[in-house]
Amino acid sequence: MSEYDPSNLFAKILNDEIPCHKIFDDDNVLVFMDIMPQTRGHCLVLPRAPSRNLLDADPAALATVIPYVQRVAVAAKKALNADGVRIMQFNESAAGQTVFHLHFHVMPIFEGVPVKPHSGAQADPAELAVLAKMIAAAMH
Amino acid sequence: MSEYDPSNLFAKILNDEIPCHKIFDDDNVLVFMDIMPQTRGHCLVLPRAPSRNLLDADPAALATVIPYVQRVAVAAKKALNADGVRIMQFNESAAGQTVFHLHFHVMPIFEGVPVKPHSGAQADPAELAVLAKMIAAAMH
Repeated sequence: MSEYDPSNLFAKILNDEIPCHKIFDDDNVLVFMDIMPQTRGHCLVLPRAPSRNLLDADPAALATVIPYVQRVAVAAKKALNADGVRIMQFNESAAGQTVFHLHFHVMPIFEGVPVKPHSGAQADPAELAVLAKMIAAAMH
Repeated sequence: MSEYDPSNLFAKILNDEIPCHKIFDDDNVLVFMDIMPQTRGHCLVLPRAPSRNLLDADPAALATVIPYVQRVAVAAKKALNADGVRIMQFNESAAGQTVFHLHFHVMPIFEGVPVKPHSGAQADPAELAVLAKMIAAAMH
């Protein structure tokens, strides 16, 4: 297995070298909007502890991050009045992983609204900023 | 939110009332083959602790189960020589949840082999039994 590359895109976001539409952060995690959302409110939960993905993660870091995934899922569903939530986590390129710092996708799901394919199209930053504030408010 | 229904299909599997192609079990979790696999080796990790899904789970139960998800992902990838692994977890019907006991899907992914849609078609039991043994062997 490859080594963790500390210059990956999400490491730069974690280090405040690249901006994001932040929902929440503390010593353990950073939560922000996916800029290529597949559903309205699609966001990402990252542990600060470095690992390429789930396969090489410290089990203790996983145990720490998963209750945050739950909090974000509950908050996003409530804030956006979603009908459900899908959690996805991809390991290695073949599985759809594009950035090699462990992250959990939290996708609010709305009845009758299909999940968009991962197209590479970026969402309107103003809309992402509003959604981030709505989800953040529901986390508190 | 609805209450946990103790007569759901996975509760019956957890209670040995309905058989499964078991990969692993202990006091915390049960791991078995999905009988409607979307990829070769698609299996499910269930905490024994009852909850409908991630949204109503005890955070401590989540922290316990996620390192098992990791162990199963690593074992399935190794046992089947997969190129990646996808973790999926669905909350509420709108998000694709069909059985209301929390479960994590572990899907080995093979380069060039598409993930099949959730069709309702059951896999060959003999093949599932072989896959369960292969993944179980890699967990030890």
